[in-house]
Amino acid sequence: MLVNGSPFRTIWLDDDGRRVRIIDQTRLPHEFVVRTLATVGDACVAIRDMQVRGAPLIGATAAYGMCLAAHGDPSDAALDSAVDALLATRPTAANLRWALDRMRTALDDVAQDDRIACAYALAAQICDEDVEACRTIGVHGDSVLRDLASRKNTPLNILTHCNAGWLATVDWGTALAPIYHAHDAGITLHVWVDETRPRNQGAALTAWELAAHGVPHTVIVDNAGGHLMQHGHVDVCITGTDRTTATGDVCNKIGTYLKALAAHDNGIPFYVAAPSSSIDWAIRDGLRDVPIEERDGCEVSRITGCAADGATTTVQLTPAGCPTANPAFDVTPARLVTGLITERGLCDATEAGLAALFPEHVVGTGA
Amino acid sequence: MLVNGSPFRTIWLDDDGRRVRIIDQTRLPHEFVVRTLATVGDACVAIRDMQVRGAPLIGATAAYGMCLAAHGDPSDAALDSAVDALLATRPTAANLRWALDRMRTALDDVAQDDRIACAYALAAQICDEDVEACRTIGVHGDSVLRDLASRKNTPLNILTHCNAGWLATVDWGTALAPIYHAHDAGITLHVWVDETRPRNQGAALTAWELAAHGVPHTVIVDNAGGHLMQHGHVDVCITGTDRTTATGDVCNKIGTYLKALAAHDNGIPFYVAAPSSSIDWAIRDGLRDVPIEERDGCEVSRITGCAADGATTTVQLTPAGCPTANPAFDVTPARLVTGLITERGLCDATEAGLAALFPEHVVGTGA
Repeated sequence: MLVNGSPFRTIWLDDDGRRVRIIDQTRLPHEFVVRTLATVGDACVAIRDMQVRGAPLIGATAAYGMCLAAHGDPSDAALDSAVDALLATRPTAANLRWALDRMRTALDDVAQDDRIACAYALAAQICDEDVEACRTIGVHGDSVLRDLASRKNTPLNILTHCNAGWLATVDWGTALAPIYHAHDAGITLHVWVDETRPRNQGAALTAWELAAHGVPHTVIVDNAGGHLMQHGHVDVCITGTDRTTATGDVCNKIGTYLKALAAHDNGIPFYVAAPSSSIDWAIRDGLRDVPIEERDGCEVSRITGCAADGATTTVQLTPAGCPTANPAFDVTPARLVTGLITERGLCDATEAGLAALFPEHVVGTGA
Repeated sequence: MLVNGSPFRTIWLDDDGRRVRIIDQTRLPHEFVVRTLATVGDACVAIRDMQVRGAPLIGATAAYGMCLAAHGDPSDAALDSAVDALLATRPTAANLRWALDRMRTALDDVAQDDRIACAYALAAQICDEDVEACRTIGVHGDSVLRDLASRKNTPLNILTHCNAGWLATVDWGTALAPIYHAHDAGITLHVWVDETRPRNQGAALTAWELAAHGVPHTVIVDNAGGHLMQHGHVDVCITGTDRTTATGDVCNKIGTYLKALAAHDNGIPFYVAAPSSSIDWAIRDGLRDVPIEERDGCEVSRITGCAADGATTTVQLTPAGCPTANPAFDVTPARLVTGLITERGLCDATEAGLAALFPEHVVGTGA
């Protein structure tokens, strides 16, 4: 998407055709810094230190990390060692393993002399596939937004939680892709951005990318969305999903469930942008079967921002030694989800809805 | 309640019988600072700068401000000027006007020579009445907690939002009064404390006062409560109320509604500690008729805490110039409220429930 009028992806090949460039997301929203990754070690640091984050972007960065490794030494031993190093950066990121498996398998099949070219081609393909999946989610979601917008004269008010924008992917994003499509097509809209404590991805990243692309938006605390819905200031909610069950339950950033409850209580449609890569076909009961990551409590007791002198500064919010708990995700039951927006189109958040779009995953159909 | 083993109120008379002492709540939770108010000007600063906050405590401080004014000059002109100065500190605080009207009317009735003694006696009475109302709410709420605790072996888990503790009143608090009673009586309990963005009264004040009194607690982000309820980690919710309608709707800190929705969705009782002073008998539809204060957006875009060097520091969380909105309260419809805990006892959050406890307020009964 656009940054001050210029199109960007979150990761791209340098003009030298070898090195890799990324936007350092740890510096957002206060600074726009582009970093160059020259070695697989640089790629490990970028993933581990969350200069890149979001499942699709982590996968893409790992793929390019394998390119950089192959450039240094295309031997089996070196590639295996690179896989190990990259895997260790964010052990629970599913896309990381998926991208590395795909790269390693492909490189296994070619002679060492051809591995560098093969790696760069496949990494580019992984990126392009992600862009295309997100773009298509945007097209399908755009039709939902146009339909809602056609029924009112004022701007369409959309609420989103966390960051499921282009910064979390290679381009377009998931939940924000329909918004970018509709905005670019001239639909008048406005986005309510939940700040999304504790890590404030909404206030820091969603607000930044919407501003950079020129989409009208307003940041609110996570407490405010219910009140806005009660008073008719929200027309539709769209969030992303970290994991979607075969029955349509949605595991997403902590607090998503509360917004889905409020949307339901106020008759407001609640859509989830769910790329097929987020669907876990083996799980049927999100509340029972999705383990919820408990993150470090210091994310609750402290927060980092930009002090008056411009320095990145962390401040303590709670009394010293105060106990904190920090569950990172929650599960929104399918009954609260109006629809899932996938790259194959819209469906009900039900087993039947998902099965109709993805018949190859239905057990017993012989696929 | 206790601070490191010593009993405190939030406001008390100095040993000299003239000056007034308060806990400077702007310094909490990082420092415990007691300030002395020697003049009505000091009282104005304490209220305006939120060294004292919470409706009952603001009223009590204003009452003592009138004592300090009378001590300086008990003439009608001086007292009128003191009323004007105190009223201007927090124009929308209902308890401020109520306390000042009560003080001014009482002092009108006595000779100038007797006004100082009369003022101190009435200010003490206003404080004692508040303590007794909160204590009684605690007794009634305690019976609810005991009943719930008797049905389980593990600690009773209570979730609260914002600060409706003794720091918001003269002692005991409203929502926290039942918790202090039950804890002091030996009921094993644990409190989930919503941090309560944007002003973080939960993380800063509720956590501090529970720790100071020795009540087990854990601070969570406002997004986390729904997840905890889904997984059986919350047995009951108790919040305060800024304004309660005659039909039982509750206007309280922004985000209360979201927790009430989650409690309802999970079959968890949701109680509101509602002193009769919070009830607006003229209003029947909270969503339609309670105006919601929109506060400065910088409360959303910035946050203040304690930096590593110990300095109180404000950091920017959003991109520079980012639009923000900051509604300060929301309305929880009575249908989501299990019961109201008043100083006269428990009642349903309905017109009939409130009328049975407060028949003198029912129109047409000739009261």
